[in-house]
Amino acid sequence: MTHWTQDKIQLGHGGGGRLTGRLIRDAILPRLDRGHLAELQDSAILNSLSGPLAFTTDSFVVSPIFFPGGDIGSLAVHGTCNDLACAGARPQFLSLGLILEEGLDIKKLHEILESIARASDNARVEVVTGDTKVVPKGSADKVFINTSGIGSVKAHAALSMARIHPGDCILVSGPVGNHGLAVMLSRADFSFDFNLESDSASIWPIVEVLLELGPSLKFLRDPTRGGLAATLNELAAGSQMGISVDESTIPLDESVISASEILGIDPLQAANEGKVVVVVEGGKAQKALELMVGCGPGQHASIIGEVTSHRPGVVVMNTRIGGQRIIPEPSGELLPRIC
Amino acid sequence: MTHWTQDKIQLGHGGGGRLTGRLIRDAILPRLDRGHLAELQDSAILNSLSGPLAFTTDSFVVSPIFFPGGDIGSLAVHGTCNDLACAGARPQFLSLGLILEEGLDIKKLHEILESIARASDNARVEVVTGDTKVVPKGSADKVFINTSGIGSVKAHAALSMARIHPGDCILVSGPVGNHGLAVMLSRADFSFDFNLESDSASIWPIVEVLLELGPSLKFLRDPTRGGLAATLNELAAGSQMGISVDESTIPLDESVISASEILGIDPLQAANEGKVVVVVEGGKAQKALELMVGCGPGQHASIIGEVTSHRPGVVVMNTRIGGQRIIPEPSGELLPRIC
Repeated sequence: MTHWTQDKIQLGHGGGGRLTGRLIRDAILPRLDRGHLAELQDSAILNSLSGPLAFTTDSFVVSPIFFPGGDIGSLAVHGTCNDLACAGARPQFLSLGLILEEGLDIKKLHEILESIARASDNARVEVVTGDTKVVPKGSADKVFINTSGIGSVKAHAALSMARIHPGDCILVSGPVGNHGLAVMLSRADFSFDFNLESDSASIWPIVEVLLELGPSLKFLRDPTRGGLAATLNELAAGSQMGISVDESTIPLDESVISASEILGIDPLQAANEGKVVVVVEGGKAQKALELMVGCGPGQHASIIGEVTSHRPGVVVMNTRIGGQRIIPEPSGELLPRIC
Repeated sequence: MTHWTQDKIQLGHGGGGRLTGRLIRDAILPRLDRGHLAELQDSAILNSLSGPLAFTTDSFVVSPIFFPGGDIGSLAVHGTCNDLACAGARPQFLSLGLILEEGLDIKKLHEILESIARASDNARVEVVTGDTKVVPKGSADKVFINTSGIGSVKAHAALSMARIHPGDCILVSGPVGNHGLAVMLSRADFSFDFNLESDSASIWPIVEVLLELGPSLKFLRDPTRGGLAATLNELAAGSQMGISVDESTIPLDESVISASEILGIDPLQAANEGKVVVVVEGGKAQKALELMVGCGPGQHASIIGEVTSHRPGVVVMNTRIGGQRIIPEPSGELLPRIC
């Protein structure tokens, strides 16, 4: 065996035979096994679940696979946890599907697995089942990851656009655009540092404190692809209400503003991977804000707008200079492979 | 918009905006929604589950994406259902993660989605949540599919290698090698027809009848990548028992024998996608065989060997001509992208 083959992923690592077994034993189990994975069955048996469950899936194809503030591994953990959290469910179990390109540095795979382990432990989820495929060089780009997740629903009432009404308030848990701009910056090769990192993180701690609001909590959504602009438009279209937001209340980091000007990317259309958009009964907006601000990752939360009966399906922004403009649904693909 | 862009997958179809919405509404929901999917939440809420659950994941990268007897869509449904079935769990819910290559014919995607719908309905599973990503041309090969699945465990005792003992019998539910050889033949471009199709199918109907055996049913495994040879070696290694099989009892279709000779592929190392290897208490082998044969998809089942205390970890085959040979664990990757 040459030096090359020991350091790189080979087709045989996905063949289901000896090399696959070695990869699982040497690279995956030592990092990720927390009780279920080492049995190496094709399915994990979960005994401790009860009540309604949330089930979700997400594939991650981000490029580059390492970026400031995270990598494809931590992103894959947080992204799926956050989809569960938006259903009011405590993330509990993850599956991990790896598609590796022949020739991938095994060292990079180790780093990604380390990152998955760290992110999972921090988010208190367990990777319980997995699958590894290898495709010939040129048939994929380095590594794609699918994580599916199961969580226990803790919300007291359905989180549904159907419960959104005029007068409800809209909050966001912190500054937006950081993930999208951090990834785009890491593709461009700038000679100066914007000090800008992805916000990739689990939002469950924020959601958990918000559950105290009971049925006053109407809807949650993590503004990933298409950013805040896409989420607000989904809300408007799905609820058939109007949405009015105030530009001055939308939290934006200085670094995001600078980078978005240089890259020509609207930060409202840039992906977030650790933020949540929250719709609550109008009378509970201040309480929701206090709960979020009192919780570490929600400290820069803000009330950004409200649901109206005017112009159903349309998102209107009151600008800083006193005008109004429509925030359109992002169309096409401005930022491919952002997550 | 040019003709080209209407017929091909564009990056925007994965952007989370308008084109993604249209793809989901026009292509995915009409075919796959059976109650959960149309809500278009990031997670599905599952209310009807109780008792221990099985959870599994599998990514499918088969090439070509259409082959005799199936396609990547039906394969993705059956593969994940079969991993659940091998845990003694009735397959119930699937997630569907699509990674599409920019430029993929939308017509092909429609065909794959049709196939997913048909296979899911036949297997009585519901696709409840999904995700679609698009990567630039050249960053993936046409389409990769991840399905994760949840099933309710119906087995009366744990199906575990730890319960395997000398004297236990090994059965297989029908002829082996068909999937692997059908896919390899469809890559080679032969001018004559072997009349050979993938066996891609759900094995749950076979497993369900076997549950009648109660704790006498020890272990189930679907012999996919690496074929029967890999599964028998896993059994030997995992149980630290010897395994003895009789060549004459291993069911093989004539077409598989012919094709394997021409392609130089050992049919015992070729993947199966609708078969199950069964370990039962020795005294229950005939009963198990009757149950399988009495069930449509198990009609060509066979008792192929037994667990022994000799040569732990080794699989020995008694050949047709009265000799013995060791069946080695397949190593490396003989058949890349077979599933």
